[in-house]
Amino acid sequence: MKLGAFIFDVFGTLVDWRSSIAKQAAARFAEAGVQADPFAFADAWRGEYQPAMARIREANRDYVPLDILHRENLDAVLARFSLEAEFSADERVGFARDWERLDPWPDVVDGLEELSSLGLVAPCSNGSTALMAHLARHAGFRWDAIVGADVARNYKPEPVVYTASAAALGLPPEAVMMIAAHEDDLVAAREAGLRTGYVARPREFGEARDTRPTGKWDVSGESLPEVARILAGWK
Amino acid sequence: MKLGAFIFDVFGTLVDWRSSIAKQAAARFAEAGVQADPFAFADAWRGEYQPAMARIREANRDYVPLDILHRENLDAVLARFSLEAEFSADERVGFARDWERLDPWPDVVDGLEELSSLGLVAPCSNGSTALMAHLARHAGFRWDAIVGADVARNYKPEPVVYTASAAALGLPPEAVMMIAAHEDDLVAAREAGLRTGYVARPREFGEARDTRPTGKWDVSGESLPEVARILAGWK
Repeated sequence: MKLGAFIFDVFGTLVDWRSSIAKQAAARFAEAGVQADPFAFADAWRGEYQPAMARIREANRDYVPLDILHRENLDAVLARFSLEAEFSADERVGFARDWERLDPWPDVVDGLEELSSLGLVAPCSNGSTALMAHLARHAGFRWDAIVGADVARNYKPEPVVYTASAAALGLPPEAVMMIAAHEDDLVAAREAGLRTGYVARPREFGEARDTRPTGKWDVSGESLPEVARILAGWK
Repeated sequence: MKLGAFIFDVFGTLVDWRSSIAKQAAARFAEAGVQADPFAFADAWRGEYQPAMARIREANRDYVPLDILHRENLDAVLARFSLEAEFSADERVGFARDWERLDPWPDVVDGLEELSSLGLVAPCSNGSTALMAHLARHAGFRWDAIVGADVARNYKPEPVVYTASAAALGLPPEAVMMIAAHEDDLVAAREAGLRTGYVARPREFGEARDTRPTGKWDVSGESLPEVARILAGWK
């Protein structure tokens, strides 16, 4: 079946969350006159992400958008860094919204434009619709729609997130390709019936890692434009 | 409270559904070699819209996206025009998707761009996410997100459509303005706690009508750029 849409993991796949959060945290620490390693802080904050979503996936907690989890996790991480006293409740609201201002990897804006000529493009992130909308303005992404966690009121890798996202775009799962830098995301997308595209992001966690894919994906590449050019050749 | 987003009725407010459907129907009738009044056909098709949604609002039927109602209503209208034999099931699928190719009123693309500088912009239509995504490509709309019926799995004027749309944009209802050419839409939005903007569309149904608003709305104008300029003055 012909592909009608491409949907994307965002944190790590399209945007460099680690450098972007560290940069903004460093500015906040400097302004508050406190000393802390901003990269360690970014890693710790991101480290709270999976356990917070797991409580929702396992239905011990009703769905809340990721913005709320980011805000709650910020409290935990500030405490761990002994910074509780340095940031007021109001300041923490703005701090948590630093996730709306993440910089894209340099190939992404061009790659999305190329893929956009092949079908609908939409983020399929665990980030909320609001977070994705603000992030798109910051990063210069032009989406046809925003799908993902908010559409399904659940978090990836739950299969419903992928199937509900395809349905929201008016397509059966097999007409939609999930593109991600994380193979667990692609495994789940494939099990839900979607096509899969892998893009390597060796510097997501800082030092370059070996990011040759271990799974067999419908397409894979070192950048989004490379993936787009392979897909254009399928036509 | 400062406005953070503008959400829009689409059929009639942003796009001229009647001329656009009539134009496409006329081409389909010509190709099939049949005689029928394309404007009467457009009016009849649109006439099935409210009763089809009413069955869902009144919970006699689970939510289905408007694309499915358009497709079902097409069968009813073709029968009424004695055209059942002229269009195959496959042709009807394409015919129903004519709703994805509606032309905007001439002021809309500029008006949305101006409003976009004041906050997030998103359609809040009874059309599905997929329909809105394809329509945006046809009409040249640049949305931050798509909200409306699909988000709430219910149809306007049910209050949940407005409140769920504001929530999806990360905002309380009072920080969101609903903009529409139909006062019943604005009454419902106001009751749901949103701000309201009225734009006159005297030619939605062909002949010019008196479209002076009878309600008191937070803002009203003859075009979207006029509404945008008034709102820019609020800052």
